[in-house]
Amino acid sequence: MTPEAPYSLENCLELDRVDPLAGFRNKFAFAASGNIHFDANSMGAMTKDAPDRVHRLLTKNWRDKSRRSWSTEDWLEKPRKLGASISHMIGANSQDVVVCDNTTINLFKIISYAWKLRGSGNAILTEAHNFPTDMHVAQGFLKFLEDLGVAGHIIKAETREQVVDKLDRNVALLYLTQTDYRSSERWDLSEMNRRAHAVDALTIWDLSHSAGALNIDLMGTGSDFAVGCGYKYLCGGPGGPAYLFINPEHQGKSWPTIAGWMGHAHWDKFSSDFEPAANVAGHLTGTPQVVANEIFSAAADIWSKVQRADVADKHQSLTETLIGILEQECSPLGVGINSPKLYQKRGGHVSFSHAGAGQVCEALVDHGLISSFRFPNSIRLGLSPLYHNHEDVWKAVQIIKDVLFQEAWQHPKYENVSM
Amino acid sequence: MTPEAPYSLENCLELDRVDPLAGFRNKFAFAASGNIHFDANSMGAMTKDAPDRVHRLLTKNWRDKSRRSWSTEDWLEKPRKLGASISHMIGANSQDVVVCDNTTINLFKIISYAWKLRGSGNAILTEAHNFPTDMHVAQGFLKFLEDLGVAGHIIKAETREQVVDKLDRNVALLYLTQTDYRSSERWDLSEMNRRAHAVDALTIWDLSHSAGALNIDLMGTGSDFAVGCGYKYLCGGPGGPAYLFINPEHQGKSWPTIAGWMGHAHWDKFSSDFEPAANVAGHLTGTPQVVANEIFSAAADIWSKVQRADVADKHQSLTETLIGILEQECSPLGVGINSPKLYQKRGGHVSFSHAGAGQVCEALVDHGLISSFRFPNSIRLGLSPLYHNHEDVWKAVQIIKDVLFQEAWQHPKYENVSM
Repeated sequence: MTPEAPYSLENCLELDRVDPLAGFRNKFAFAASGNIHFDANSMGAMTKDAPDRVHRLLTKNWRDKSRRSWSTEDWLEKPRKLGASISHMIGANSQDVVVCDNTTINLFKIISYAWKLRGSGNAILTEAHNFPTDMHVAQGFLKFLEDLGVAGHIIKAETREQVVDKLDRNVALLYLTQTDYRSSERWDLSEMNRRAHAVDALTIWDLSHSAGALNIDLMGTGSDFAVGCGYKYLCGGPGGPAYLFINPEHQGKSWPTIAGWMGHAHWDKFSSDFEPAANVAGHLTGTPQVVANEIFSAAADIWSKVQRADVADKHQSLTETLIGILEQECSPLGVGINSPKLYQKRGGHVSFSHAGAGQVCEALVDHGLISSFRFPNSIRLGLSPLYHNHEDVWKAVQIIKDVLFQEAWQHPKYENVSM
Repeated sequence: MTPEAPYSLENCLELDRVDPLAGFRNKFAFAASGNIHFDANSMGAMTKDAPDRVHRLLTKNWRDKSRRSWSTEDWLEKPRKLGASISHMIGANSQDVVVCDNTTINLFKIISYAWKLRGSGNAILTEAHNFPTDMHVAQGFLKFLEDLGVAGHIIKAETREQVVDKLDRNVALLYLTQTDYRSSERWDLSEMNRRAHAVDALTIWDLSHSAGALNIDLMGTGSDFAVGCGYKYLCGGPGGPAYLFINPEHQGKSWPTIAGWMGHAHWDKFSSDFEPAANVAGHLTGTPQVVANEIFSAAADIWSKVQRADVADKHQSLTETLIGILEQECSPLGVGINSPKLYQKRGGHVSFSHAGAGQVCEALVDHGLISSFRFPNSIRLGLSPLYHNHEDVWKAVQIIKDVLFQEAWQHPKYENVSM
C-alpha cells in the first residue's frame, strides 16, 4: 500500500480511497478545532456514542432502576464480555481475556501468579528502560518476597542483546513490553517466547503500546501471559480498565493472588469460601468499573467488527507513509526518525527526534497537531488505523514542517513543557 | 429528634421541618416514577450534576483537549483530593485517605502490608459471615503465603463472642467489617481496637456499610487500617472506586505490595526505580479511574460541606423512626426487626424479616419502594442522611404495610427473586 517517494497529498488521498477501514472514521468524535490527534499512546480518540451511552447508564439505570440494574443489566458480566470483544485483536480466544482493574494491578496479579507456576528460577528478567510502572510492579513484588524471607531478584538488562544473553535457567519470568514506549522498537514475540521456553522461563508481555495497531498473535506465538492498557489504541477512555490474558495451558493451576468475589467460580452465589473460576475469570477481583466499562464497550463494539490483519495493514501503511513524508519534508530541518524504519521492527507509534523536541511538541498543539513529548528529545506520533487516514499524515507533516521552518517553537510561550 | 409512639405522618413532617441537612436533598436526582430509593447499601443515589460533569469531561477534555488534559486537569491528583474530601466522614486526617481501585484490591493491599508490619502472629481473625469478598481476599492472601512456603491461617469465628475469645497473641490481624451486611449489627471500633492492641494485633476495618451514615472516628478510636466502598452511602457511582486509610503511625514503614507509578514519591518524574511515597499515597497503583473519579467528585463536593456528627444524628433519627413505624404498622403482618434496636449497636441499614422476604422485596419495587433482599428472609433498607427524610420513611412503611396486608407479594410474577 505504500507509495514510492516523492510523497504527495495526491498519493495520500489515493491510499485513502482504497482503504477498507475508511468507514470507521465516522464512529469517532474529533475536536471542533480540527486538531489532528496523533496521540493514540496517551489516550485514544472517543467514540461518538460514548457520551450518550454514559448518560443513558446514569439516568435510565443508576437513577431510575438503581440497584435493579445489577441484575437486569450486564454490569457484572461486562469484564468477560469486553475481554471477548477485543480478544481477536491480540490473537487470543474469546474466553481467555478479561477486562478489569488497571495495567499495574494486572501486572501484579500476573507476575505473582506466574512466579508460583514457574516454581523454580529466582529472577525476573526485564529491560532497564521498560515502562516505569512495569518496573515498579516487579520491584514491589520482589520486595514483598524479600520481606517474607523468599529469595528473588530482578535483572535489568541495558540493551536488547543483554536480555538475550542473560536469559538462562535462573530466570523464572521474562517480562517485557512488546513496544518500547519511547523508540517504538518492537520485540518479536515468537522468537522471545521460544528462547524463554528453552530455559523453562515463562513470558509476560505488556501490550499497551501494541494492541489495536499491530498484528499480535498471542496463541500462535506461544505467549504465556499478557496485559495491556485499554485507553490507548483501544480507545477505552481515560483511565479506563486494562486487560489480562492467560494462556489456557496456565489457567486454573493455582489460586489468583487477589481473590475476590467476581473471580469466584460461582460469584452469583455469595459463598464465604473462595473457589477460583478455573479460567482467566478467576483473576477478576471486586465490583467491576461499571461506567468505565460502558465507555470501553462503545469502542469494543467497533473492535468486534474488524480483523486484526486489516488493522495492522492499515497501520503499516500509515506509519510508513508518515516516516516517508517526514524524511522527505523535514530531514533538512533537523528531524531524525527514532523508530525502526523496518516495519517488522516497529511497534505502535512513530517517534522522531529534534533538538527542541519539548518546545516543538508544545508549538505543534498550537498549530493543530497533538503529539506527545518524551524526554530528552523525542516526539511520539501515535496513529490509529480506525480513525486516521493518509491525508491526516500529510497535513500533520506540513504542520511540523511549518513550525520548524518558521521556528515558531522558539517563542518563549513554549518554554513550559508538559509531559 | 425521635418522636414518641404512636408515630404519624405529622410527626415525620415536623422532624423534616427542623432537619439541618434538609437542603441537601435537592442535590440528588430521583427517578421520575417517584420510587422511594431505600437502597443505599447496593448503590447510593446519583448527584444531580453527575451526568453533566461526565459529559463535560468526555467532550471538553477527552475529545477536545485529549492528552493535554493529563497535565491541565487534576486527573492524576484526584485520588488524593477525593480522599481528603471524604476523610472527615471517617475521622481521618485529610492526608491519610486515598480513593482508588476497588474494595477487594484495597483489602489485599492492606492485609499484605499490615501482615508485614505486624511481623509476628500467624493468623487473620475474622467472622465466618464477613462479607464474601472480604473472606475471599483473606483466604487468597493466605493461600499465596502457603504457596510461597510461609505459614499463616485464617480463624473464622462463628459469633461475636468467639471473635473476642479467639483474640490472642497468635492473631496478627483482626479483620472485620464494622457493620454486618445482613443484620446491620455494629462493632465498637474503640473496644475492638483496644482488645486487639492488648495482644499486639493490628486492626483492619471494612467500613463499606458504615461510612456516610455513622459517626466513625478512626483516629479517635485508634484504628490501624480501614477500607471501604465508594458507591454505597457515599454515592460515588456504580462500580466507582473505593477508599483506603492508614493510620499515620503505620505509614512509610514498608513498601506497598502493589508498587505502581502513582504510588511513587515522585510520580511525575517517570523514574524507573520505585521509591514509595512515605504516606498513604504510596498505596496508589496505576492510572486513576478518570471518569469514575469525576462522578465520585460530584458526591465528594457535597460530603466536604457536612459534618459527620450531623450526618450521624440525622441517620439515627431516620432509622429510629423507621423501626418505630415498622413495628407500629407492620408487626401484626409478620414483620420482625432483624437489626439491633439500640442505636449504638446498629450500623448503616435497617433490616426486617418476613417469611416471604424475597417476593415481598420484588413486590415492593412494583409498588414504589426499592430495597434489597438478603437470603433467607431479610429485607434491607438503606437510608441516607443526605437525601432521605422522615416523610419518605412514613411513605415507605405504608407501602410495605399495603403490600403485606393485600398479600400483593403472593402474585406469581414475584416468584423470580433477584439479589
